Amino acid sequence: MILIPEIIGYAAATLTTVSFLPQAILTLRTRDTAALSLTMYSLFTLGVACWLIYGIYLSNKAIIYANAITLVLATSILSCKIYNIVCKKE
Amino acid sequence: MILIPEIIGYAAATLTTVSFLPQAILTLRTRDTAALSLTMYSLFTLGVACWLIYGIYLSNKAIIYANAITLVLATSILSCKIYNIVCKKE
Repeated sequence: MILIPEIIGYAAATLTTVSFLPQAILTLRTRDTAALSLTMYSLFTLGVACWLIYGIYLSNKAIIYANAITLVLATSILSCKIYNIVCKKE
Repeated sequence: MILIPEIIGYAAATLTTVSFLPQAILTLRTRDTAALSLTMYSLFTLGVACWLIYGIYLSNKAIIYANAITLVLATSILSCKIYNIVCKKE
């Protein structure tokens, strides 16, 4: 039997992971990163990488998969932001 | 003795929580939300609310505090985005 806290936990993990997909799509499609904070995506990407290492340490597949996906999405958004700054588009 | 996985876990939680502060400051200062995905912040805010409920269920203070802070920051960014859409600024 799946308990209510477990369902809420899975919903939480799914929502916070999946949420970065529409942002990554929007950013890669429009290439507009003016309103995105470089500091946020730098800290966030580093944090997600730490979560991934933490998951690997614990051999916890849920933490590994969720953060591996988020890391790819966050890195793509961060790369686009850095590209725009380096190419003086911002 | 604090183990390496615990240090990495704390670093991960701190970084992913704190990262939304510079984004919230940038958004509230500039009011520019054009490059921010409405879908992302809607799903993310809902997900963080689920994490908060999950933490309350488990009586886990670390989950509660981290997600309470993130919820305030994500809600402020989402509110600014919705305001701009409603007021036809986007």
